Amino acid sequence: MPGPTIVRPIEQQDYEAWLPLWDGYNAFYGRSGETALAGEITRMTWSRFFDAYEPVHALVAESEGRLLGLVHYLYHRSTTAISPNCYLQDLFTTEASRGKGVGRALINAVYERARAAGSGRVYWLTHETNHTAMQLYDKIGERSGFVVYRKLF
Amino acid sequence: MPGPTIVRPIEQQDYEAWLPLWDGYNAFYGRSGETALAGEITRMTWSRFFDAYEPVHALVAESEGRLLGLVHYLYHRSTTAISPNCYLQDLFTTEASRGKGVGRALINAVYERARAAGSGRVYWLTHETNHTAMQLYDKIGERSGFVVYRKLF
Amino acid sequence: MPGPTIVRPIEQQDYEAWLPLWDGYNAFYGRSGETALAGEITRMTWSRFFDAYEPVHALVAESEGRLLGLVHYLYHRSTTAISPNCYLQDLFTTEASRGKGVGRALINAVYERARAAGSGRVYWLTHETNHTAMQLYDKIGERSGFVVYRKLF
Amino acid sequence: MPGPTIVRPIEQQDYEAWLPLWDGYNAFYGRSGETALAGEITRMTWSRFFDAYEPVHALVAESEGRLLGLVHYLYHRSTTAISPNCYLQDLFTTEASRGKGVGRALINAVYERARAAGSGRVYWLTHETNHTAMQLYDKIGERSGFVVYRKLF
Repeated sequence: MPGPTIVRPIEQQDYEAWLPLWDGYNAFYGRSGETALAGEITRMTWSRFFDAYEPVHALVAESEGRLLGLVHYLYHRSTTAISPNCYLQDLFTTEASRGKGVGRALINAVYERARAAGSGRVYWLTHETNHTAMQLYDKIGERSGFVVYRKLF
Repeated sequence: MPGPTIVRPIEQQDYEAWLPLWDGYNAFYGRSGETALAGEITRMTWSRFFDAYEPVHALVAESEGRLLGLVHYLYHRSTTAISPNCYLQDLFTTEASRGKGVGRALINAVYERARAAGSGRVYWLTHETNHTAMQLYDKIGERSGFVVYRKLF
Repeated sequence: MPGPTIVRPIEQQDYEAWLPLWDGYNAFYGRSGETALAGEITRMTWSRFFDAYEPVHALVAESEGRLLGLVHYLYHRSTTAISPNCYLQDLFTTEASRGKGVGRALINAVYERARAAGSGRVYWLTHETNHTAMQLYDKIGERSGFVVYRKLF
Repeated sequence: MPGPTIVRPIEQQDYEAWLPLWDGYNAFYGRSGETALAGEITRMTWSRFFDAYEPVHALVAESEGRLLGLVHYLYHRSTTAISPNCYLQDLFTTEASRGKGVGRALINAVYERARAAGSGRVYWLTHETNHTAMQLYDKIGERSGFVVYRKLF
C-alpha cells in the first residue's frame, strides 16, 4: 500500500526530480526535441521559484520520497481587482499517478495559498480538445466561457 | 470630415474623459448598477497607471480632443519565457466610433509597445459568444484554442 | 515572570494592536500631529502586507497576547546581484520592552527569512545621531560607511 | 569643440560601449580582478534593463556617438509612501569627461523621469570618504543624515 501523498513548496534539492516532470509537461505541449524549451528558460524559471522578489511559485506532490507531480503558479495584477489574480500556469503528474487525486490535491493546494494571500481568483487554461483534463476541472473549477486570443512576435 | 485619431499614453488630466469609457466597458460585462465595480477598485487601477513600480498601463485613442477608446494592458511573468507576457485586459471604444479602426489601432499600439519591451506575446480574452469582436480579433490575432477555467473565492 | 516572546508574520486581526506601534514609530521620526503620515498611506501599506503580489512584509513580536514590536521589510532589485536585496525599513518596540532583546529578535527574524528567500543582504538606515540604536546595530550588523543622499519632489 | 551631450535610455546595441563603463564603475568599488562581479550578474542586470516587467532602468550620456557615462536606477516600494521610491544605484562617467556636467546631467535625467513617474523621491548612496562626489551631490541633492547598516550572508 502506497504511503500518503503530501503537497509542499519546492526546494532547491528537488531539481533532479523536478526536471523530468517539467520536461514531461513541456513534451505534452509539443515542446520537445527540436521544439524543446530553451535550457536558459528552464534555468530562469527555476531560479524565479526561489527569488523572494518574483511572484512565481512551485509546489510538488511527494509520496515515499518520490515526486508525483508539480504545479507552478504566479500572481499578477488585474485592472478589475485590488488584489492580484493567481494564474495556475503548469500542472503535471506522472503517468503512473494519474486518476489518483494528485492533480486535484495540487490544485487545491494552490487554492489554499491564493485564498490565504488575499487573491480573489485562481485561473488556468486548457485546450478546448483536452476533455480528459476537463473532467477534473469541471468538478473543482468553472469553465468561464472565455477563450484566449494571442499574437506571438 | 473628422480629424485624425491618435493613440497615446493616458495622462492624469484624462480622468474625467476616461471614466465614462471605463464605466461603459464594465457595463458591457455586467458590472453596472448593483453589480458595479467598487469605486475603490477604479481608484486603485487609475493610480496604478501612473505608478512607475506597477506594470499596468493604459493608452487612449483621441480625435479632435475627445477620447474614443481605451486599452489597458499589463506585463506578468510566465514559466515558459524569460521575457514577460503582455495581457491586454481591457479594450473599449465609444459606440459612435466602432467599425472605424479605433479598436484595431489600440491593439496595434499595444503590439508595438510590447514588442519594443521585449515581450514575446500579447494575449487577451473574449467570450466565446462575442462573434462581433472575433471578426476583428481573427484578423489581427490568432485564436489559440485554449479556454479559461477559474475558481472565484 | 513574563511569558516568552515570539516573532511571527502579521495577520489581519493585528490591525488594532499594530496601529499604535506604527504611530509611535512615525512619531519618533517626526511624523505626528500636523506632519503625521497621511491615513491613506497607512491603509495602503497595511494592505500591501497581505497582497501576494507585493514584496512588502511585516513581522510582530508578541508576548502574552500583546504586541511588543514590529518590523517591516521589503525586497527590491539590485544591479549588482541576481537575488534581491532586503530592505528592513521600519523597526519599533514599545518603550516598556526596550533593552530586552525584542528589537534584536525582530531583526534576526528578518535575517532568517531573507536568507531562506535567497537574498544576499539585509540593509537598513539609521540617523547618524542615533547612538542608542547603533549600540544594537553594531553588534548584529555592520556599519557600511555609506551615507544617504536624496532629492525630494 | 565637442558636440552636445545627450542623455537617453540605453538600447540593446549599446552593449559593447556600456560594458567598459560598467566595468570601470565596478572597479572603482573594488569589484575587479579576483573580486570582479560575476559575469552572470552583468548579463542578468543587462537583460533587466529591457524587461518590461522589471523596474530597473538605465540611461547613458552620449556625445558624438561615444558613451561618456551611465546611470542605473530602479523603483521599489516604501512603507511610508504610496508611490515608489527611486533608487539611483549606479553613476559613472569616463575619466576624460569628469567635471564637465555629465554626472549632473545624468542625475537630472533620473529626477525628470522619477518625477514624471509619480515618485516622491530619488535617493542614492555614497561612501562617507568620497568628498569628490559629494561636491556635486551637495549641490543637486541633500545629505539626509542617514547612514547604512547591513548584514551580508
